[in-house]
Amino acid sequence: MKLYDLEASGNCYKVRLFASLANIPLEIIPVDLPSGAHKEPPFLDMNPLGQVPVLEDESHVVRDSQAILVYLAGTYGGLAWWPAHAQGQADIVQWLSFAANEVEHSLCAARLVKKFGQPLDKSAALTKSTVVLSLLERHLEHNDWLAMSRPTIADCAVYPYVVLAPEGDVDLKPYRHVASWIKRVEELPGYLPKP
Amino acid sequence: MKLYDLEASGNCYKVRLFASLANIPLEIIPVDLPSGAHKEPPFLDMNPLGQVPVLEDESHVVRDSQAILVYLAGTYGGLAWWPAHAQGQADIVQWLSFAANEVEHSLCAARLVKKFGQPLDKSAALTKSTVVLSLLERHLEHNDWLAMSRPTIADCAVYPYVVLAPEGDVDLKPYRHVASWIKRVEELPGYLPKP
Repeated sequence: MKLYDLEASGNCYKVRLFASLANIPLEIIPVDLPSGAHKEPPFLDMNPLGQVPVLEDESHVVRDSQAILVYLAGTYGGLAWWPAHAQGQADIVQWLSFAANEVEHSLCAARLVKKFGQPLDKSAALTKSTVVLSLLERHLEHNDWLAMSRPTIADCAVYPYVVLAPEGDVDLKPYRHVASWIKRVEELPGYLPKP
Repeated sequence: MKLYDLEASGNCYKVRLFASLANIPLEIIPVDLPSGAHKEPPFLDMNPLGQVPVLEDESHVVRDSQAILVYLAGTYGGLAWWPAHAQGQADIVQWLSFAANEVEHSLCAARLVKKFGQPLDKSAALTKSTVVLSLLERHLEHNDWLAMSRPTIADCAVYPYVVLAPEGDVDLKPYRHVASWIKRVEELPGYLPKP
């Protein structure tokens, strides 16, 4: 099973982190983003959005980090990470949407500007980062994990850009419940350190 | 089962559309957004993001339109709309992420500026709208539906902001495969017209 990957990408780290926690072997295929390999065939045939990560499991191709988490957990990871009942799945999907939208346009965007020089609005990203972290802080004040009172792919989808946020000049110090959650994630068996 | 709703919201329309297609009865509870009811308790206790829609099914509360689709389909809608196997679920989740991120920051954002006067970057939203619609056009050239070769909640998540796009000054005319897909959605039994 191949993961088309960029080491520094938080979206790719979501997948590598989960695979490590769930003990799922992946063959890592680095994609040469600086040369634009992700914007040309054959990569573009796998993901028309031109983004890493992409998972290839024999003839089956999955794009989008959230979808890859669902695929890996549902196929190889066991019900602990992605349950069979819709109530638990919806509880998790709330956080997958939060990762795809709110986290992407705040913590991730600030890091893309600072670390990779992308032409995004860093000021707006930092303002949204405060909203995102405050919301996580309130949730984690009363919950050890994001969904289902246990570690799930919801945590794997949100944790990477939170822990990488200081690389975008986001200060995590005001958020002590977020800090405790980060510590809990990092104490999970099989934890893979951030890139 | 209560849906906290705003008639003009495309995100709420995703849920109302699917419920209509799958014949799931919902009690519609209008939320008074102009007076800011979504930014205060008790609404804020149900959804800390302060956004509609929110679904309340007895004691169970689900926020986020994509998560509500998963909840409704998985609980009441049957396997046609949301399958039990991870390969199909991941195929759909790719499009749920696309709805939560790419569609939200393009077609939806342009409409929010034009129709509701929100202070977003309309020019950037229109540029992204072209990317989103071109990608859909290429996919729908070879596929009748977004995922699994049949109507699923993926279509319900993406269709609303596509069909509402002209309200944000987005021209759908260049996209004939998108137009055919729109027609297919509108011919489904139980189809609910756009707000």
